[in-house]
Amino acid sequence: MLMQTHEARLDALRKELSRRGLDGFVIPISDEYMSEYVGAYAQRLAWLTGFGGSAGTAAVLAQKAAMFVDGRYTLQVREQVDGKLYEYQSVPDNSIAQWIADNAPEGATIGYDAWLHSKGWADALARALAEKGGKLVAVDGNPVDAVWQDQPEPSPAPALVQTDTNAGLSSREKRAAVGEWLKEKKLDAAVISALDSVAWLLNIRGSDVEHTPVALAYCIVHDDGTAHLFIDEQKVTPELVAHLGNAVHIRPRDAFEGALAELAGKRVAVDPERAVAAIFAALEKAGAKPVALTDPTILPKAVKNPVEQQGHRDAQARDGAAEARFLCWLGEAAPSGGETELSAAARLHAEREKTGCLKDLSFDTISAAGPNGASPHYKVTDDSNRAIEPNSVYLVDSGGQYPDGTTDITRTVWIGPDAPPAEVKDRYTRVLKGHIALALAVFPHGTSGGQLDAFARQFLWAAGLDYAHGTGHGVGSYLSVHEGPQRIAKAAGPQPGTGQPLLPGMILSNEPGYYKAGEYGIRIENLVLVEERAIPGAEGVFYGFETLTYVPIDRTLVNADMLTPTERDWWNAYHAQTRAILAPQLSGDDLAWLEAACAPL
Amino acid sequence: MLMQTHEARLDALRKELSRRGLDGFVIPISDEYMSEYVGAYAQRLAWLTGFGGSAGTAAVLAQKAAMFVDGRYTLQVREQVDGKLYEYQSVPDNSIAQWIADNAPEGATIGYDAWLHSKGWADALARALAEKGGKLVAVDGNPVDAVWQDQPEPSPAPALVQTDTNAGLSSREKRAAVGEWLKEKKLDAAVISALDSVAWLLNIRGSDVEHTPVALAYCIVHDDGTAHLFIDEQKVTPELVAHLGNAVHIRPRDAFEGALAELAGKRVAVDPERAVAAIFAALEKAGAKPVALTDPTILPKAVKNPVEQQGHRDAQARDGAAEARFLCWLGEAAPSGGETELSAAARLHAEREKTGCLKDLSFDTISAAGPNGASPHYKVTDDSNRAIEPNSVYLVDSGGQYPDGTTDITRTVWIGPDAPPAEVKDRYTRVLKGHIALALAVFPHGTSGGQLDAFARQFLWAAGLDYAHGTGHGVGSYLSVHEGPQRIAKAAGPQPGTGQPLLPGMILSNEPGYYKAGEYGIRIENLVLVEERAIPGAEGVFYGFETLTYVPIDRTLVNADMLTPTERDWWNAYHAQTRAILAPQLSGDDLAWLEAACAPL
Repeated sequence: MLMQTHEARLDALRKELSRRGLDGFVIPISDEYMSEYVGAYAQRLAWLTGFGGSAGTAAVLAQKAAMFVDGRYTLQVREQVDGKLYEYQSVPDNSIAQWIADNAPEGATIGYDAWLHSKGWADALARALAEKGGKLVAVDGNPVDAVWQDQPEPSPAPALVQTDTNAGLSSREKRAAVGEWLKEKKLDAAVISALDSVAWLLNIRGSDVEHTPVALAYCIVHDDGTAHLFIDEQKVTPELVAHLGNAVHIRPRDAFEGALAELAGKRVAVDPERAVAAIFAALEKAGAKPVALTDPTILPKAVKNPVEQQGHRDAQARDGAAEARFLCWLGEAAPSGGETELSAAARLHAEREKTGCLKDLSFDTISAAGPNGASPHYKVTDDSNRAIEPNSVYLVDSGGQYPDGTTDITRTVWIGPDAPPAEVKDRYTRVLKGHIALALAVFPHGTSGGQLDAFARQFLWAAGLDYAHGTGHGVGSYLSVHEGPQRIAKAAGPQPGTGQPLLPGMILSNEPGYYKAGEYGIRIENLVLVEERAIPGAEGVFYGFETLTYVPIDRTLVNADMLTPTERDWWNAYHAQTRAILAPQLSGDDLAWLEAACAPL
Repeated sequence: MLMQTHEARLDALRKELSRRGLDGFVIPISDEYMSEYVGAYAQRLAWLTGFGGSAGTAAVLAQKAAMFVDGRYTLQVREQVDGKLYEYQSVPDNSIAQWIADNAPEGATIGYDAWLHSKGWADALARALAEKGGKLVAVDGNPVDAVWQDQPEPSPAPALVQTDTNAGLSSREKRAAVGEWLKEKKLDAAVISALDSVAWLLNIRGSDVEHTPVALAYCIVHDDGTAHLFIDEQKVTPELVAHLGNAVHIRPRDAFEGALAELAGKRVAVDPERAVAAIFAALEKAGAKPVALTDPTILPKAVKNPVEQQGHRDAQARDGAAEARFLCWLGEAAPSGGETELSAAARLHAEREKTGCLKDLSFDTISAAGPNGASPHYKVTDDSNRAIEPNSVYLVDSGGQYPDGTTDITRTVWIGPDAPPAEVKDRYTRVLKGHIALALAVFPHGTSGGQLDAFARQFLWAAGLDYAHGTGHGVGSYLSVHEGPQRIAKAAGPQPGTGQPLLPGMILSNEPGYYKAGEYGIRIENLVLVEERAIPGAEGVFYGFETLTYVPIDRTLVNADMLTPTERDWWNAYHAQTRAILAPQLSGDDLAWLEAACAPL
């Protein structure tokens, strides 16, 4: 079969829109669960335009079309999307609503798929169109699907059981807590539509979304703690049925929309940030009262219980040994040349496989040599694959999904044999000092990540430097590697922070960086756990971070003269602990490498 | 005449409410300009209840009444307001709207004075009442005024001219800029209702509000840069008329409400944070379209022009010499006993008077001995006046209004003769280290004060300590000592921060503290000016702080072992500069004291 061009796909979509009487249509990267990572079946934007980034939206009108991306994808969109077919627009400077209002004919009818957008988004676009006499209508079936001939089916993979031993709390206990919450709020039921929320609540996992071990499903929880799980029948195994028990009614995925109508007359919690507009519409149509509230599983999912905390320590120790073996190999192999970003990523993957319990990588490994490291979200492909050259900077950001925890670690190393340039050492040491300042932070109850973010940036700022991403994101327990609601970041700009106070049991990354376009990138990332601190004489409740990730940080790149005694103490204590955790898991050359890497600075 | 009791006043108000058919009434501390500090004529809450704090609200119903104050006034309200007449309620935990809804009869009619509340406040209360079948009505004339027999008249003081020499920009230039802004926004006029905005825009000052040199007036600016000034005729001097020129039409203060009706059919900018509900209502009634926008003078007022910046340096140098003379005297007089909070405040005032150009204090001097220092907003009265005892901590937070600038400085000193306890030195040094960390901060364009706040708290946090107020507020140019929109503070809690990015030319205080209830208070406050920093190799635009306040910081309280070399360098450079600025203004004992106080640490 002849490969369809993007021009042909756009033409086909326009014909389909015309056939339906639509003057335009909006195509986001989203699925009906509002996931951060979406399955192949829902990759409508990539199919239509060729865009491979993780965030973007196309607007298609009869004569014009535009691609909207944020600053991270300014270059990538120009490489991947045909500028003759799509205007390039940047958000948040330009608004999709405004562009449509400006470019659509007066009184236009614009379609959208209510299963792919939030209610807030749809309401805002409807208002903007109304000012020009236009209207926004929800389509009945996505018109892209109608013209996408070889669209994949949603993954048929079986749903899996997450044992209570790994979860720390049974689904029954979790559902009972949601039931109590509903009673307190005088509500009858909650729609749980985020895939990781469903997975956490029911202690199930899956393999339907790359790198995120979730199963495609919706859940409705009632105030008595019972639930209805809507899931494709081919995913349901006898183990799953036994695990879920009598209080969870398993129903076909297709029955979900109809089941919303069964809630007529009830007060139903729905999270407007996590549930698509179609769910609100279905409830309202049925005569149910949707009450906009944050998904009640979000906070208990973010605050890890003691079993989950220990799971993370165990997973990190195991994963750290794999990373250490990789770094030992890299230090040996790379300075003589011949290795590439792909060969290194494969080696690291193989080391993680050797642990015997790797379920998946937690995201596509960022294996970035030299200038490729300057793109914080770089993804190596056959086309981009670059040799790891002697005397260069190499950055590797990676992680594994294990049944007891999700890992995420970045190390930046100098590939010898010569000594690194003074500028690279200066930048690296500033990033390190910021990492240490955040690791050592002590803060009162009520503090949000945004209040701590500048600790990690201060030494770069002093030199007139910065990095254009957040400093820390939440991490799931054998779930999403990016998990909210907590975040350490600036209040505004790319990847902005949240007002969520940090609470004991929350896990975050600590990952300041520095990026010099065309030359190199630096990032040092460990995961940390918020813990309560017993400070003698403390006036109030104070917290600090327990480090979870223990892998040597490249000492070659450190300018030790720039470290204070406190920072040097942190470095030495960190590496003493790293040695203690990893040495029992290593031998031979790997152990010798570890000993050298962990010697006091 | 017999002094009326608060019970008699409450009874009289209730009779007046009953006469008007009202089931209740709300009494805030506010005036028709929504000022932070209000004139005596508008001190309705103090007259009614005896409450002397700067923030609070009473709700009066036929059978019950309540006083709502925030955490700062929890103790004070119990001392000043009769608990038999008023329930004590704390905000934000308890809502005034909720209390009224809970305690008023079903279908109650509650009055409010639309000239004293924001539209947002009135809308929220109206919604809460509506849920109980009640309604909120704007009164015609404040019922408190009807029963307050000896209510003072608004101040009749003349309005004064602020020369272009001190203002740096003429009123014509400022009004032209507002006119341009209106044209850009396709608006016809702007209502300027904040007293300091009117003063800044027209380069006028006054003495109608204690410590804030403003004149009671409203202003309407048109898109051609002309304006109408509504001001009591007895305030208008020939100098004022000459200064304002032909493009500013002076009209009686009473004509303001009617003038709003003249804007029928026009699009009018009104700031919902700064204009009372009555202004919105009058515009809407007249058929004008009020457009809710931030007062266009707020940002240019906050970003000081070069003349204002130099004015602040000059005012601070002069004020610093007065403070230094005071501290020299205090160090001599206090350790032998006999001085009090009042005598010290009077001495400091006298030193400021000696400058020959003091117009007013910028706020009531916080002269706080020992345990009184533990109340950050302590105000000394004849009743509270406390002896400054030997071997105690004394805190003095004060400032002056000068034609070229407004000052605000806090120094905390140890009153000998013995050495201070180790704990006090530890806390003082932690506050000092935080002050220095903020003073040395470098940060990129776009950074808000909330992102820097933790720099000032980190050393207290490390010891399990904190302070329950913001770290820095904006300061006006011979205007409000608390001026927005910038602020260095936590995102939430008492005195929360704002999202306003810091811009070159903005002035802020840097005032971390520590307060030990029943024992002592510590605060170290300088004013700083945001300045652009030229950093070699900088990637982007970066800012830092120029210090404006130069007065010795008490070295007796410093534990020098806790300072890093960088902090010690800051201390020594700061005191070298202090010596350079103050020495030419001092002589004799004062100069000798300065030399000793500024010796390297």
